[in-house]
Amino acid sequence: MSLQVLSKIESRCEYRFKNRELLITALTHSSYAHQTGVESNERLEFLGDAILNFVVSVEIFKKKPNENEQFLTELKSAYVNRNFLNELGKKLSLAKGLRHIGLVEPRLDQAVESLIGAIYLDGGFGPAKRFIKKFILSARIEPLHDQKGLLRKIVHDKFGTIPYYKVERIYGPPHKRTFVITVSITGTRLKARATGKTKKEAEMKAAKLLLDKIKIDHFFENL
Amino acid sequence: MSLQVLSKIESRCEYRFKNRELLITALTHSSYAHQTGVESNERLEFLGDAILNFVVSVEIFKKKPNENEQFLTELKSAYVNRNFLNELGKKLSLAKGLRHIGLVEPRLDQAVESLIGAIYLDGGFGPAKRFIKKFILSARIEPLHDQKGLLRKIVHDKFGTIPYYKVERIYGPPHKRTFVITVSITGTRLKARATGKTKKEAEMKAAKLLLDKIKIDHFFENL
Repeated sequence: MSLQVLSKIESRCEYRFKNRELLITALTHSSYAHQTGVESNERLEFLGDAILNFVVSVEIFKKKPNENEQFLTELKSAYVNRNFLNELGKKLSLAKGLRHIGLVEPRLDQAVESLIGAIYLDGGFGPAKRFIKKFILSARIEPLHDQKGLLRKIVHDKFGTIPYYKVERIYGPPHKRTFVITVSITGTRLKARATGKTKKEAEMKAAKLLLDKIKIDHFFENL
Repeated sequence: MSLQVLSKIESRCEYRFKNRELLITALTHSSYAHQTGVESNERLEFLGDAILNFVVSVEIFKKKPNENEQFLTELKSAYVNRNFLNELGKKLSLAKGLRHIGLVEPRLDQAVESLIGAIYLDGGFGPAKRFIKKFILSARIEPLHDQKGLLRKIVHDKFGTIPYYKVERIYGPPHKRTFVITVSITGTRLKARATGKTKKEAEMKAAKLLLDKIKIDHFFENL
């Protein structure tokens, strides 16, 4: 990796590493590590994920004294979810420094978490927290509603059972999978189908669709 | 709640609260809070969960420099899983102080996490970390293997698809549910069924059984 790329990433992240090996490890995908025998960023990702969750949780707990646990959980999800962190990775130019083998469009969320772990090891808790506040908590963001959780609750209360998710089909190459999911409620004809880039995304969309159907049914019931 | 009970819990936890209201809130289940209008322990649980995950992650990251991310994740699960925390709650006599309505055998894992959140707010990060080290990280414990994750990986590599979990039946009263789960692999006859007290427990057991079957099949294939 060129020094220029590393410097650019440091400048984007507003953090200069004492030990640049940590930054390089944070930018080493397991595909590269497995073939070359160097250390991958997976351990740093494990560490960074825990730091990120901690800082985000404490901050929103303080900032939102009147919101309940469900709101806090959904707001946290909005900050720590893969898509949001992937976009941040792009802004920080991490793709330029990421060492990998054979990935067409590498996801950068894992690299962002690894970077947080690396900053923590290099500079301690203060700089890691500063990074999270500056680049993550500063974003104007809406809570990410947990449609699956909401559907589970409503189905449990209304039908005494749980929603049933089924993978109908998976297609596309490994780096660009599409999942087709149906969700249904046993003993009823309620059903919805959705597609997504991940199993979870498809499930969330299907849950949302089914929730809408239940609401419409409920509306007619009460006419 | 009697002062005696609170003192006993403080002495078991080896922490004396400056603000005992925090301890009382940590011991207030949502069932009690909803009926009386007081604050439940759910926000504290949200906070405590994040602190617990952070402290456990950092400690095992440092203590196990040669283990990979999967090992760290499984070891963390062993420390933060519901059953382990529930047992700890019993040891700390939390059941005696828990305010709830209508629960036959209240789970105490949520109360333990809330307690960690309460200690953090009352005394700061130091005492919360001390509590986690003393009562959680000191336990001699084996990593909790993620059988679902392992099955997903093997099924993906071997069959190019994903395992398919189905809830066959749920029975028993709400506080003592039993879940019957089958897991299968589309396009094969491989199948396993298991029961558990939670959906996840049943799925983990079913995944373990199916993994064993795949290994046996694999053995005969290679004869």
